[in-house]
Amino acid sequence: MDELKVFTIQKGIYEDNAKVAEETRKELKEKGVYLINIMSSPGSGKTTTLVSTIKALKKDVKIGVLEADIDSDVDARTVQEAGAKAIQLHTGGMCHLDATMTKQGIDELGIDDLDLLFLENIGNLICPAGYDTGAMKNVAILSVPEGDDKPLKYPKIFGKVDVLIVSKMDAIEHFDFDLDRLEERVKKLNEDILIFPISAKTGEGMDAWINWIRKEINKEA
Amino acid sequence: MDELKVFTIQKGIYEDNAKVAEETRKELKEKGVYLINIMSSPGSGKTTTLVSTIKALKKDVKIGVLEADIDSDVDARTVQEAGAKAIQLHTGGMCHLDATMTKQGIDELGIDDLDLLFLENIGNLICPAGYDTGAMKNVAILSVPEGDDKPLKYPKIFGKVDVLIVSKMDAIEHFDFDLDRLEERVKKLNEDILIFPISAKTGEGMDAWINWIRKEINKEA
Repeated sequence: MDELKVFTIQKGIYEDNAKVAEETRKELKEKGVYLINIMSSPGSGKTTTLVSTIKALKKDVKIGVLEADIDSDVDARTVQEAGAKAIQLHTGGMCHLDATMTKQGIDELGIDDLDLLFLENIGNLICPAGYDTGAMKNVAILSVPEGDDKPLKYPKIFGKVDVLIVSKMDAIEHFDFDLDRLEERVKKLNEDILIFPISAKTGEGMDAWINWIRKEINKEA
Repeated sequence: MDELKVFTIQKGIYEDNAKVAEETRKELKEKGVYLINIMSSPGSGKTTTLVSTIKALKKDVKIGVLEADIDSDVDARTVQEAGAKAIQLHTGGMCHLDATMTKQGIDELGIDDLDLLFLENIGNLICPAGYDTGAMKNVAILSVPEGDDKPLKYPKIFGKVDVLIVSKMDAIEHFDFDLDRLEERVKKLNEDILIFPISAKTGEGMDAWINWIRKEINKEA
């Protein structure tokens, strides 16, 4: 197995986050790299979704992953084994990544050889919602076992993202989860949001998500 | 239904959190109120566990709940309907409660008539782990669908709590979750931790958790 990079992010001196985010987006566009920021609770299936996504795209898309975590490097190892270029970013207890922190990860990983870059943000529905990381699109994952009431409790993140992936759909019969009720609650906060119900286990719904990514990359190219 | 209190917590001027926490604990002991701080990811089953706990104890224990949330009052309404005295605390986007914020909730709710008080902390495995709220005991909930690898990623909270509730045990056959592997990972961080696997749905394991609470309350009385 390739060596795995682990990097401890420094909290930058205060800078205008929006400005750094815009500069990052500009650099990414110039290099032809499409950055997607993925956010969710711990255990919603960010890494599992990424692994399935990497496997579906890696034949013709060069993929990198910035794996942000408080601790450990298990997720970066997992996505690296699936076929992505990966770096583990440790935030030293901080519960989100801002644009400066994301930029550090991009520079450490090296992106000149990539088409698509995922930022797997810290497992948290609150802190990451407030920061533009420089990503072209923001994606939230909500897993079926978490419940369809989460948009009521975390309106900021559900109101802000471009895409909502509803994961672990294979488990829906074991939980009191109503997809229509969820969609209604989310659309009230965010009428333009795209919703992809998926199961990485059975493959259900993965095509729609993968096709969306392909379309987005091609728009930029 | 009783009227429900909703209170927006103010971020206090900086004070020594440990000192405020100790004063809160002293006040609670004098009034004979046992405070338990409950922390978990969003959707792990904090409210569902509380509802089952309230129903099991309310005949002979007077219970209050401080419901902390970024937004909404659905959880406070739910626990109030289950038979607890409840207040919804809005944190205005802050991702944890410290001792000063908990004290504001206690004062607003009024605890002179209570035996047992739960703080349902913000749904988050990171921020709440760093703050002594004044509680006698700290409890984390990890639900089976979140995965048995969470202690590797969030060592601070699993290393700190007195009790770990493993919730949604009824769903274990549908997920790749090994209770022994979880226990081994948690005990490495925290050898004195008590672990209660439960299902609020089937009632599995609830007795052990309820008996532990009764024993704790009686120790203090």
